[in-house]
Amino acid sequence: MQNKSSLQKNNPVPHVVIVGGGFGGLYAAKAFGNKPVRVTLIDRRNFHLFQPLLYQVATGGLSPGDIASPLRAILSGYKNITVIHAEVRDILPGEKRLLLSDGEVDYDFLILATGVHHHYFGNDEWVKQAPGLKTVEDALEIRRRIFLAFEAAEREADAAEREAWMTFVVVGGGPTGVELAGALAELTRETLKKDFRFIHPPEAKIFLIEAIDRILPTFPVELSRKAEKSLQKLGVLVYTNTRLESLTGNRVTLIRGQESSELQTHTILWAAGVRASTTGEILSRKTGVALDRNGRVMVNPDLSLPNFPEIFVIGDLAHLKDQNGQLLPGIAPVAMQEGRYVVRCILGRLKQTSVAPFRYRDKGSLAVIGRNRAVASFRRVNLFGFPAWFAWLFVHIWYLIEFDNKLLVLLQWAWNYFTRKKGARLITGHPPFPRIKNPRQLT
Amino acid sequence: MQNKSSLQKNNPVPHVVIVGGGFGGLYAAKAFGNKPVRVTLIDRRNFHLFQPLLYQVATGGLSPGDIASPLRAILSGYKNITVIHAEVRDILPGEKRLLLSDGEVDYDFLILATGVHHHYFGNDEWVKQAPGLKTVEDALEIRRRIFLAFEAAEREADAAEREAWMTFVVVGGGPTGVELAGALAELTRETLKKDFRFIHPPEAKIFLIEAIDRILPTFPVELSRKAEKSLQKLGVLVYTNTRLESLTGNRVTLIRGQESSELQTHTILWAAGVRASTTGEILSRKTGVALDRNGRVMVNPDLSLPNFPEIFVIGDLAHLKDQNGQLLPGIAPVAMQEGRYVVRCILGRLKQTSVAPFRYRDKGSLAVIGRNRAVASFRRVNLFGFPAWFAWLFVHIWYLIEFDNKLLVLLQWAWNYFTRKKGARLITGHPPFPRIKNPRQLT
Repeated sequence: MQNKSSLQKNNPVPHVVIVGGGFGGLYAAKAFGNKPVRVTLIDRRNFHLFQPLLYQVATGGLSPGDIASPLRAILSGYKNITVIHAEVRDILPGEKRLLLSDGEVDYDFLILATGVHHHYFGNDEWVKQAPGLKTVEDALEIRRRIFLAFEAAEREADAAEREAWMTFVVVGGGPTGVELAGALAELTRETLKKDFRFIHPPEAKIFLIEAIDRILPTFPVELSRKAEKSLQKLGVLVYTNTRLESLTGNRVTLIRGQESSELQTHTILWAAGVRASTTGEILSRKTGVALDRNGRVMVNPDLSLPNFPEIFVIGDLAHLKDQNGQLLPGIAPVAMQEGRYVVRCILGRLKQTSVAPFRYRDKGSLAVIGRNRAVASFRRVNLFGFPAWFAWLFVHIWYLIEFDNKLLVLLQWAWNYFTRKKGARLITGHPPFPRIKNPRQLT
Repeated sequence: MQNKSSLQKNNPVPHVVIVGGGFGGLYAAKAFGNKPVRVTLIDRRNFHLFQPLLYQVATGGLSPGDIASPLRAILSGYKNITVIHAEVRDILPGEKRLLLSDGEVDYDFLILATGVHHHYFGNDEWVKQAPGLKTVEDALEIRRRIFLAFEAAEREADAAEREAWMTFVVVGGGPTGVELAGALAELTRETLKKDFRFIHPPEAKIFLIEAIDRILPTFPVELSRKAEKSLQKLGVLVYTNTRLESLTGNRVTLIRGQESSELQTHTILWAAGVRASTTGEILSRKTGVALDRNGRVMVNPDLSLPNFPEIFVIGDLAHLKDQNGQLLPGIAPVAMQEGRYVVRCILGRLKQTSVAPFRYRDKGSLAVIGRNRAVASFRRVNLFGFPAWFAWLFVHIWYLIEFDNKLLVLLQWAWNYFTRKKGARLITGHPPFPRIKNPRQLT
């Protein structure tokens, strides 16, 4: 400890440690750029992932490199920021210290922004059969399964088995599920239309399963209805009020009210539930802070912890209500605003000035449906169809460019849109081949 | 057998089976497009890989999707061509049949174009320590190792160990080795220059090891010398007349004449030897055809087999000499010309017309050194430096566009060149973290 305080004397500038380089952590780091603090950003990955476009990687429209930017490159201009590629194993709040996968790091202020991971509601055995969409690896695994399914269908001689390969079930009607189902519909109806000789990809069945009575439940009811109609027009079979009861082999059992039905499929994609990352549990154990039932940390109105004012939690990991008592949603704009807010808060404390509690400024929500339709809900306006899609495109260009000048990514993607091409539909990873029960004889 | 001949009666159009969708197989398939034959193209991958740019994926300049095109998409316009995603397990030349990973396929003509894989000259245990660069997965593994090495060096407190992380050894001075070493030099000298706080990436040591007395041995001597000087100017340590003696843990032993020296490194990249794919061995066992010492198939002047005129071997898998008695090199232009030739040959036979033996038209060789230099050897002209690089760029744009309209890929890449950015330097795959012996304490 003596060692530490002598080091602190030599380093009078306060040390802020940020864990997690998602939207919350990265925006906090950027806001600290060239400010009178030393910042260490720790992440398990060496890149920031532009998650709103991850469904495009999963469906073969973009490559991982198109939607990821190296954290070091984004922050290289700020000499007061150090990026560390490591994993946090433990938090010692009394000593203001983190234990990493290798080594340790001491902090004066700590910002936790480690986000969420998938949650299978107690059915953890589903994880292998129904991959979720959170990481680059997730997206490549989903891509592998989607494109292998068509390869298998092309080779399979048995009609029922072929239909199972051409049946896709997306579980969860939130923005990710809607965007995945819409992209799958476009892929099968347009992109792959002429690519096979023994199957007709537009005949693929795409199910979207949602437990409550409408998809996109965080949007106005009117937009939910319009989104549902749009998906149906694209050929997606939307099942609301429907729960996934079981998953055995290739058999999916669905429950709708008293009715139960079965589907045969080889491809189930999970977009239903998330749970806060384990950092929340460590924090709760070590500081006594309460967690909500999804593992999110119950923070003060300024996003700090009740007994540890130097620890902040932001983004999807934080549980905070807005002025109307509504829980703030786990979306990028909330995380970004929270990231910037804690920077103001910490810099304010260093100057002994007080900062008002965090207040979320809702700039609206957006979700894409297929190729050139979207739903958008702004404070006073709801948009739908092409105008909403255009708003969506504009917002995404704006943020992608802010990071890494990825204008060309958007250009490339626009090109794919107009030519209906999908540039990145590679099957990589293992196993390279599906198991085909009755291979078609080729003479 | 009766079944088969009745099927053949119902299908009077001859069935050509092509194995391998590289430059040879794909150009053959395209040349058969809408011709009076039925074609089945079999590949283990669902995409054609533009291998000359693979070193760009390995060094974080491009994504796999940028240099790969789905075989189905390239060939979807030709109704007489079927693409099959499968692996060939055996060849039954008497029955004109292939056994696949699943199912079988009968042929009237067979074109084998399965290429080569790495070869460690009897040191197969080196494969894990020194990955080669042939597949997308190889490139991503090399990319992972390169960028993890810098992350580890940044975290490592011990100077010697840090130097080992910042030492890169490229084995093999052919075009792939030269391009890898040049790209590594650019990466460390320019792209990563400002990204770290505890290390200075331009201090990284990059060794290029070549067993004979000059790099790029298939080029004129003058260009070898110029390429060597260019690499040295970029900071690459070029060791000719040097053999890799052993590889133990992180220790590399090199032999130069009587001298032996040792290096400590965590990153060794293999660009030294290739050997024909196992299809050659199967073919030899089943047809008695001779193989050369690298496993290549000794073909007739028309690329067919001595006793099986309906079987052709093309590309890197074929051993054929030109009119001067020189072995044709394993490069894309040879494979492409051979692919087109066998199509003429087969269509000629169907029309009972004879086709002259294959003759390679040498259009020159190209290799890139770093960011905007190259060496180019055309029939009468040798180019060097920027003009050669420009020629290189033109040739690659030409072929990339021919496949998939990838003009935007080249634009993006040009953008990276001018901004010195590297857009795809993601660490993906396992393990996600290096083992750091003495982690630096961060306070």
